[in-house]
Amino acid sequence: MELIQTNRCFDGEQRIYQMTSQALRGKSKLAIYLPPQALQGQKCAALFYLAGLTCTEDTFVIKAHAQRLAAQLGLILIAPDTSPRGEGVADVDAWDLGQGAGFYLNATQQPWAEHYQMESYIVDEIYPTIVQTFPILNHAIGIFGHSMGGHGALTLAWKYPEKFKSVSAFAPICAPTECPWGEKAFSNYLGDDQAEWAKHDATQLVLTMGQKFTEVLIDQGLNDQFYSQLHPETFQQACNKVGQKLTLRLHDGYDHGYYFIQSFMDDHLQFHALQLQK
Amino acid sequence: MELIQTNRCFDGEQRIYQMTSQALRGKSKLAIYLPPQALQGQKCAALFYLAGLTCTEDTFVIKAHAQRLAAQLGLILIAPDTSPRGEGVADVDAWDLGQGAGFYLNATQQPWAEHYQMESYIVDEIYPTIVQTFPILNHAIGIFGHSMGGHGALTLAWKYPEKFKSVSAFAPICAPTECPWGEKAFSNYLGDDQAEWAKHDATQLVLTMGQKFTEVLIDQGLNDQFYSQLHPETFQQACNKVGQKLTLRLHDGYDHGYYFIQSFMDDHLQFHALQLQK
Repeated sequence: MELIQTNRCFDGEQRIYQMTSQALRGKSKLAIYLPPQALQGQKCAALFYLAGLTCTEDTFVIKAHAQRLAAQLGLILIAPDTSPRGEGVADVDAWDLGQGAGFYLNATQQPWAEHYQMESYIVDEIYPTIVQTFPILNHAIGIFGHSMGGHGALTLAWKYPEKFKSVSAFAPICAPTECPWGEKAFSNYLGDDQAEWAKHDATQLVLTMGQKFTEVLIDQGLNDQFYSQLHPETFQQACNKVGQKLTLRLHDGYDHGYYFIQSFMDDHLQFHALQLQK
Repeated sequence: MELIQTNRCFDGEQRIYQMTSQALRGKSKLAIYLPPQALQGQKCAALFYLAGLTCTEDTFVIKAHAQRLAAQLGLILIAPDTSPRGEGVADVDAWDLGQGAGFYLNATQQPWAEHYQMESYIVDEIYPTIVQTFPILNHAIGIFGHSMGGHGALTLAWKYPEKFKSVSAFAPICAPTECPWGEKAFSNYLGDDQAEWAKHDATQLVLTMGQKFTEVLIDQGLNDQFYSQLHPETFQQACNKVGQKLTLRLHDGYDHGYYFIQSFMDDHLQFHALQLQK
């Protein structure tokens, strides 16, 4: 990892790194907030944040307003980009497919398979690298995200519960096999076999794998312009069915954006800090 | 004022308005955060934030992380754009002059005088409009800002102490008549007469007008890449000379950007809330 920017923030440091990724076959940027405790070498819990469609590694660090409480709680925050980038990386003229829309899975179909390997990038590359590089408490790593990144957080948590000890999401795509965003992305990245799709659908994963976490927290705005894409109730039913404790909070007046996310950010950080320090 | 965007945020609303300004001879955008108390019709203190070079009305609301505590304290936040905008508005190919660099004064020189009337826009147009439109406590209006906007906050506060009851700044341009940014802007907007410049220089205003506020708060990063443009010590000497209480805090490792600002935002909001609720 090459450090390309660092800014002092709440006595910690907001950093941007660049990694050469074997999975993505190219360079990728990564934002990491180190709280003051980590700068002093003290072991900290860490939390991955996966952003939504059209976002980059910068979105979370600028718009989510998480650093203040992360500094207090001693949480390391890790925000990857949302897809591979650059010339030579397949793309289309759409904001919900291609660059900015990696969906946190490994594509098997052309032209995507060459670079779109976000699942491997996060789990097999970033994860061990940050464990090696920063003072992180053993097993104290959680994951959360927003929209497409909420889908990413839920699915990666269920696929790798030995890696992620806590999970939460803001307005996640809970059942991508049943919404236009997911159908478009999955048919392009994974092909037509719906059995393959199910392996990357949070609701399906919960039904198949069962209860995996002490508690899951989801916040959802009731004025969300993309509500019909998200299906939180479907996910809730799956959790109920397998006995997975879920706190699903529905919020009057809130929409899909970062003004919603920042409003409930502190609750998520507190939620993870509690789970991770157990 | 025409409401063009609104987002629920910490149970208040982050809004963007568009105004047709007589002073600017054109349309101008304005960001206003209304805390929940204001939405319920309760009278609140209000705080103008003036942003720095290259910024817009959006910068503060996205990057400064002020809404959380403003919601708790019941503070209305008002963030104007940094200059007139649009086709027909004079501009040059520079980030420190023209659009994005209005310096919160009324230009007297061509081609700037036609639209660059930011002082009148803020004091004679926005100020009475927001007093009329929102539930604002009598005389409970403060002003703060960053860099060029710190210069704007200090100078407008000293020019209009009957309008602004409290003032603070992040890394303000404290003595624009003595730094390249100020010399460039003032010679273009105000011409060559340095007596005119002095009327828009915070240090000169303090020396001329004397003590005006119970206390002034300035935060300054010691790793600020623009430190040589800012002269906080010169301002401090002027305050000492006239008996103006100033709290100037110098912070190791912090630079000029919004990661610095967000780190001390809560202190500024608390400072103003205390002054304004006296």
